[in-house]
Amino acid sequence: MKIHPKEFRVAEGDKVDLGKWPTKIDPVYKSKHQYKKMLEAHIAQLSAQQQLHYASNRYAILLIFQAMDAAGKDGAISHVMSGINPQGCQVFSFKHPSATELLHDFLWRTTRDLPERGRIGIFNRSYYEEVLIARVHPEILRSEGLPDALLIEKSVWHDRYRSIVDLERHLHGNGTRVVKFFLHLSKEEQRKRFLERIDDPQKNWKFSVDDIKERKYWEQYMTAFEQCLGATSTGDVPWYVVPADDKENARLIVSQIVLDTFESLKMSYPKTTDARRKELLAIRKGLAK
Amino acid sequence: MKIHPKEFRVAEGDKVDLGKWPTKIDPVYKSKHQYKKMLEAHIAQLSAQQQLHYASNRYAILLIFQAMDAAGKDGAISHVMSGINPQGCQVFSFKHPSATELLHDFLWRTTRDLPERGRIGIFNRSYYEEVLIARVHPEILRSEGLPDALLIEKSVWHDRYRSIVDLERHLHGNGTRVVKFFLHLSKEEQRKRFLERIDDPQKNWKFSVDDIKERKYWEQYMTAFEQCLGATSTGDVPWYVVPADDKENARLIVSQIVLDTFESLKMSYPKTTDARRKELLAIRKGLAK
Repeated sequence: MKIHPKEFRVAEGDKVDLGKWPTKIDPVYKSKHQYKKMLEAHIAQLSAQQQLHYASNRYAILLIFQAMDAAGKDGAISHVMSGINPQGCQVFSFKHPSATELLHDFLWRTTRDLPERGRIGIFNRSYYEEVLIARVHPEILRSEGLPDALLIEKSVWHDRYRSIVDLERHLHGNGTRVVKFFLHLSKEEQRKRFLERIDDPQKNWKFSVDDIKERKYWEQYMTAFEQCLGATSTGDVPWYVVPADDKENARLIVSQIVLDTFESLKMSYPKTTDARRKELLAIRKGLAK
Repeated sequence: MKIHPKEFRVAEGDKVDLGKWPTKIDPVYKSKHQYKKMLEAHIAQLSAQQQLHYASNRYAILLIFQAMDAAGKDGAISHVMSGINPQGCQVFSFKHPSATELLHDFLWRTTRDLPERGRIGIFNRSYYEEVLIARVHPEILRSEGLPDALLIEKSVWHDRYRSIVDLERHLHGNGTRVVKFFLHLSKEEQRKRFLERIDDPQKNWKFSVDDIKERKYWEQYMTAFEQCLGATSTGDVPWYVVPADDKENARLIVSQIVLDTFESLKMSYPKTTDARRKELLAIRKGLAK
């Protein structure tokens, strides 16, 4: 079965109702064996594309992952990106901001970690937390030390969406391709995964009591995601809503979208001019002696 | 004589013709002695405002200085800011970008050095170089490793103005007040200052042969400044065109504008609540024993 990234893409200006976006679809693989084969093929292509990306040194790629807890962000990143030369790929996870970071605007701390040309940067959570968790828990916003006049609840989210869209337009215009994934998990599937994390001693480290606390805000999070996806998905810098109840299927979809992004860049190895070729042959002669 | 910052301010949407903006005006001081007194008074007020700014920890201030060589950027910064606690004020000079910086978009390297809340940041040259020197010398743009599709001469400057305006709107919206100074020098006054730098052995270090090379592009620079000032001066984040043929006068104007910026923030020391006052008095009792 072929994967069509367009199916998962939020069109610019769309009103998003997550109830209408599936968390589960018919898997594109027929067996675990076929899944493995398909993922391996994707990774091999990704690895070749990344080499070309690194050599041609023209664009940067930024992949952003956002989701509810246990939706499979870490798994998707490790399984999809494992075949890639780590020199060309850096992953940054954004947890609680530091005291210094809080003294700056909300886009500051992630800017430092933006990928260089020729590289892939992966943000496991990102500046989007500032319109997600900060929206569900407005006390986070209030703790950010902003001038009171800026804390008018009605306009602050709108202003933040605008700042984000402006930043991403700037990045796109300067050669960074930004691709954003929302791993869309059902509340029931999260319950199952939390139970697994509690029942399996090897998975206990993944579980925190805070996760259960956040689960209580499920509806508020869905609203925050819907508003955010609708306001910040653009033609150049889209959001993809990836059905995430089936982890394996989600990984195949994510890797296909990344592959399509690479292919859209139509990169080629830097051309060798005749003069350069001549020079290389002369050097070759010397080395061959 | 009173200084009216509004006189020097470029209104949003203005078409700027630098030929019509003076490089020299009647000085606001009557004697060197009076100049010194006035500057001292400004510095004392600035210092008090900066202390309040640091204590209230709500806004950040970013001052950007751009000008032709020998217009007095360094002098203005050192004379106006010399009375300020260096803990609350940092100056960054931006020269040639490093190899790593060139692997990022043109706004990346200055973002790292943006001022924290409660501080003053000063950019001696800035991201504006990317629409000034890079516009006068398009080979600089071409050396930045951007994808060819982004190098369409006609749109790249427009896109860069937009990126800058978007960034500054975001900063303003998040509590950073950005004030931009163009020190407006006449070509004749630059000639005199270059001669001084050559004739006075103590000033020789300030002179570089490159300065003379750039002087040949005077008209192109004026055009680049005119377009830039017109496109990036906004109601919230204005440019000021400061007549700079008289250094002393320019310093008084700059310091007055910075003072006005501080005063517009209407800051106050964080209030002590009754409970906190009680607590402090209890601690006081213990210490006094």
